Amino acid sequence: MIIVLKPGVAKDEIEFITEKIRLLGLIPHISTGEERTIIGVIGDENKLREAPLSAMAGVESVMPIVKPYKMASRDFTGKDTIIKIKDVQIGGNVLHFFAGPCTVEDEKSTMQIAEFLQQKHIRIMRGGAFKPRTSPYAFQGLGLEGLKILRRAADAYNLIIVTEVMAMRDIDDVVKYADIIQVGARNVQNFTLLKELGSVPRPVLLKRGLATKIEEWLMSAEYIMSEGNKEVILCERGIRTFETATDPSHGVGVRQYIPQMVYAAIASGSDGILLEVHPDPDAAMVDGAQTVDFHEFTVICDSAKKVAHAINKEIACL
Amino acid sequence: MIIVLKPGVAKDEIEFITEKIRLLGLIPHISTGEERTIIGVIGDENKLREAPLSAMAGVESVMPIVKPYKMASRDFTGKDTIIKIKDVQIGGNVLHFFAGPCTVEDEKSTMQIAEFLQQKHIRIMRGGAFKPRTSPYAFQGLGLEGLKILRRAADAYNLIIVTEVMAMRDIDDVVKYADIIQVGARNVQNFTLLKELGSVPRPVLLKRGLATKIEEWLMSAEYIMSEGNKEVILCERGIRTFETATDPSHGVGVRQYIPQMVYAAIASGSDGILLEVHPDPDAAMVDGAQTVDFHEFTVICDSAKKVAHAINKEIACL
Amino acid sequence: MIIVLKPGVAKDEIEFITEKIRLLGLIPHISTGEERTIIGVIGDENKLREAPLSAMAGVESVMPIVKPYKMASRDFTGKDTIIKIKDVQIGGNVLHFFAGPCTVEDEKSTMQIAEFLQQKHIRIMRGGAFKPRTSPYAFQGLGLEGLKILRRAADAYNLIIVTEVMAMRDIDDVVKYADIIQVGARNVQNFTLLKELGSVPRPVLLKRGLATKIEEWLMSAEYIMSEGNKEVILCERGIRTFETATDPSHGVGVRQYIPQMVYAAIASGSDGILLEVHPDPDAAMVDGAQTVDFHEFTVICDSAKKVAHAINKEIACL
Amino acid sequence: MIIVLKPGVAKDEIEFITEKIRLLGLIPHISTGEERTIIGVIGDENKLREAPLSAMAGVESVMPIVKPYKMASRDFTGKDTIIKIKDVQIGGNVLHFFAGPCTVEDEKSTMQIAEFLQQKHIRIMRGGAFKPRTSPYAFQGLGLEGLKILRRAADAYNLIIVTEVMAMRDIDDVVKYADIIQVGARNVQNFTLLKELGSVPRPVLLKRGLATKIEEWLMSAEYIMSEGNKEVILCERGIRTFETATDPSHGVGVRQYIPQMVYAAIASGSDGILLEVHPDPDAAMVDGAQTVDFHEFTVICDSAKKVAHAINKEIACL
Repeated sequence: MIIVLKPGVAKDEIEFITEKIRLLGLIPHISTGEERTIIGVIGDENKLREAPLSAMAGVESVMPIVKPYKMASRDFTGKDTIIKIKDVQIGGNVLHFFAGPCTVEDEKSTMQIAEFLQQKHIRIMRGGAFKPRTSPYAFQGLGLEGLKILRRAADAYNLIIVTEVMAMRDIDDVVKYADIIQVGARNVQNFTLLKELGSVPRPVLLKRGLATKIEEWLMSAEYIMSEGNKEVILCERGIRTFETATDPSHGVGVRQYIPQMVYAAIASGSDGILLEVHPDPDAAMVDGAQTVDFHEFTVICDSAKKVAHAINKEIACL
Repeated sequence: MIIVLKPGVAKDEIEFITEKIRLLGLIPHISTGEERTIIGVIGDENKLREAPLSAMAGVESVMPIVKPYKMASRDFTGKDTIIKIKDVQIGGNVLHFFAGPCTVEDEKSTMQIAEFLQQKHIRIMRGGAFKPRTSPYAFQGLGLEGLKILRRAADAYNLIIVTEVMAMRDIDDVVKYADIIQVGARNVQNFTLLKELGSVPRPVLLKRGLATKIEEWLMSAEYIMSEGNKEVILCERGIRTFETATDPSHGVGVRQYIPQMVYAAIASGSDGILLEVHPDPDAAMVDGAQTVDFHEFTVICDSAKKVAHAINKEIACL
Repeated sequence: MIIVLKPGVAKDEIEFITEKIRLLGLIPHISTGEERTIIGVIGDENKLREAPLSAMAGVESVMPIVKPYKMASRDFTGKDTIIKIKDVQIGGNVLHFFAGPCTVEDEKSTMQIAEFLQQKHIRIMRGGAFKPRTSPYAFQGLGLEGLKILRRAADAYNLIIVTEVMAMRDIDDVVKYADIIQVGARNVQNFTLLKELGSVPRPVLLKRGLATKIEEWLMSAEYIMSEGNKEVILCERGIRTFETATDPSHGVGVRQYIPQMVYAAIASGSDGILLEVHPDPDAAMVDGAQTVDFHEFTVICDSAKKVAHAINKEIACL
Repeated sequence: MIIVLKPGVAKDEIEFITEKIRLLGLIPHISTGEERTIIGVIGDENKLREAPLSAMAGVESVMPIVKPYKMASRDFTGKDTIIKIKDVQIGGNVLHFFAGPCTVEDEKSTMQIAEFLQQKHIRIMRGGAFKPRTSPYAFQGLGLEGLKILRRAADAYNLIIVTEVMAMRDIDDVVKYADIIQVGARNVQNFTLLKELGSVPRPVLLKRGLATKIEEWLMSAEYIMSEGNKEVILCERGIRTFETATDPSHGVGVRQYIPQMVYAAIASGSDGILLEVHPDPDAAMVDGAQTVDFHEFTVICDSAKKVAHAINKEIACL
């Protein structure tokens, strides 16, 4: 921790600050430069994080040196994370589509999508059973019944299932029926939920929130990891800005631009792509405007494969 | 709903769209202007909200006419909301401080603060028992024990208690010990929690999220209200922007600017002010940098009262 | 400057960095902590600002200690800036309305507004002659003729004039006819214009840009001040965020909320308030939606005066 | 234009609004729906844009139907824009690097870079002679001398030159020495400059501003086009958001992530890529942290070509 003092800081202000530091078991080193006096703090910086140093008299600014997350840092493991689920590997040289309907609507359409995905050599199916909807009057998903349909589809077509959990009470069901648990953007700082997922035997796909800084996102991953579950998949889904022409909820949120976004995401090095697929997007119950049909998906796969090869990666699709 | 069509839209594209509209029991009215053809839709607009009109061929843009919230709209009741808790009234001509420690630390300091608040004629005490912390390694609050301390302080000094709930499992305890339930910024779209609070016999203080649009915030209020609980207090706490000099977590987040923010909030017509007070902010366990001490609070009260009077309001403080 | 090195930084990486520092005439001090090695740099930090330290191998982050602006810093003068124009003083205990039409439309209405302002004891009149319009097809102002009208109105009713300059070629005219030169939000980083205004014998009212950080805003002020003109008035006009319910171009941009914004701005300590006044806002050529009429302005003045008194300030209005 | 009225709007309020509309030569059509009355306006919508309809009594919201730009709209020409400069074509199936130093430093390094670009079959060289710098104390470019160096390098190595103009007084020089004129992000709404560039015989590369909405950006293009110059190249350079880990000034602003950003930009369909190249980026006078060296550029070209081929495009590099 570096504490920059104001010009003209008083001697007793410096003493007040250094005393606070010593009380926490840390050692202050005062260094007087041409324009500012600074205090460098030796010792475990975390002990100082909650002290209101920035508000103390004589302090101009406070600069932490160490990142507030540990396990979520690349420094911690020293290598890229690879997650294995059954015979599917996420991370590494092969990238995956996480494809499927926004929301599970019924058994028939879900089976139809799963069959299509298998034909395209896709291995990971996404689908919502519990849906976070901005409006209380909107369709909220099939719940447990949706989970069961997803599982049957997965078993019939050799797929891995990712689905969202919104409440702690549903975790057991989701663990029972799904292979990867998704935390939605709006729950990225639902710390109670994150903590609970830290002791669950399933990888967690953690979506970035609309206004989550990368550091905060990694802190949310840390919540899960610090409880024991080291398998966290970070899913960038766009952030909220002043621009209203695109929709941060879905990377771009405009159906006609989905292919370009997919290619860009692959080209920039993503390990996976979440994509909504539906036999008839114009009739989809939720998010039809961001959903592609089977033909469009096939076209996307063709180019996606070439883009992946261009950067020396493989992609799991036909 | 107004659907603006692209120039050169094909006849069968218009037919596809109007057919979709009719299938939902609504009536399309086509109107051809100088530069664009538009379709006005007569009937219950909500039926159309989930249809992916914007992605359909020939559509340039879609404009809803009606707000997506009902009960949370001023149009619904036609008057300002007033909430009565015991002998305290929120809303109307008298504005209140919601003052107290960021986090309940122990019985002694909580009682000391409560006594001070009573002396200052403050009626509403805030204090955190369950704390949402960005870091899993930070102090997370005293939990149930914190709730009990708050209740004892409230009973001893004739105060109303507002405290945050983060998880559904804690709702019963919070209802038992507190008078107003706070939903924090990070849970503003935790829809499962909101829905549950819709059937709880306590007013809900709903903080705005860091990136919540006003319309979304009202939709979150609607989640609570649509389950039966009409007593929602909206608490604006600042939004996240590109500026890093201030902190959206606390309106301004810099202790020295707190008085100015309080006066501005009163002058702009707020019904209440949340403010963190602690006997020794530099030693506070959480958020000390945004906390004032008893003397500073007294100074703020003096001017706050004058500002309130300037706009013909009263304020509950000495 | 503090340079934080990555864990496991190589010895020759450290040497490369320290050599770069020495070449610039500065002295590096290496300090090895528990988790990170840092390099503190002694000497004039500005010499290092343009070196791409952050991209050098082994560097995790770079933290400047000193602010990049000098004259625009409160540290430089040690006191609040006060600007005197004729018998009007800006800054200090008396705050001013800068009131008038968005755009000068014609002599008659301008005189009518000026007369009204004098009656209300307002001393500073605003009015646009050169208007920055988002659309090339919108009314662009009366230009030089507008400046002359403003001057005549000011002379007739004992007012000080503030008006915007958009191009260097118009500076001479604006200096001739106006008392304060406004730089609009869209030109806040038009560095050529700013530099030119640094040698002009008029105070500059510098509006904050839609996405200007406070530090950048002060750097823009520094551009003016470093050329000799120390009289810069900073005008906060709201920034662009994700929220679309209000308009950053005018603080709030919604006529019905203007009074509350005025009171809040006063309560938070502003030295002046820019406000658009027009005899018939619904017929105003530009920005009518953010403009109040004479009656509304009179009502605002009454409360504004009380709010100013509440925080022990005076305000120049009847 | 669609005007949505408030519930309970008064009859004379409707009359006031419709009268205003008729006075402008337009025809109001009132339509009464289940929840709202709306007024559709027939005629040239632009006549209404400046009327403060949204602030009039009884009005809830106003929705324009037509985009405010014309020539900058794809509807206007009906096809992609292609710009030809000497034997180089921008737009179409071949994409170009616009590569070169951030700032022209001297003849020798500029020639060295130009020679390298020619070897790599690059046809467009970028380089700054007039540099917009946040700080008045930073290096501001070589000015006219820089332009001459660029021209000599271009002539020697068969390159097209793009360089920025910051002030109207420099336009003649830039036209004399450069092939494409760049408008920087900070001047995107310097309307005086834009208008002047509308009558200049050079294509304009118009960078998006840090907080410019796409609609506003197109309006800025319209400023240029409405004066006669139809050759505008839009350059997306990232916008300002709450995230501080990347730098909106340069797409990503972190040297190590430049390759990924280049590939993503190509994959998403860009017609060109601006990239800073320098023989020794660590010694570059400006923006070294966002600059790659010759070896890195060569590596980027190799993959860039493959990514372009993946989406069926060619790229002008070896």
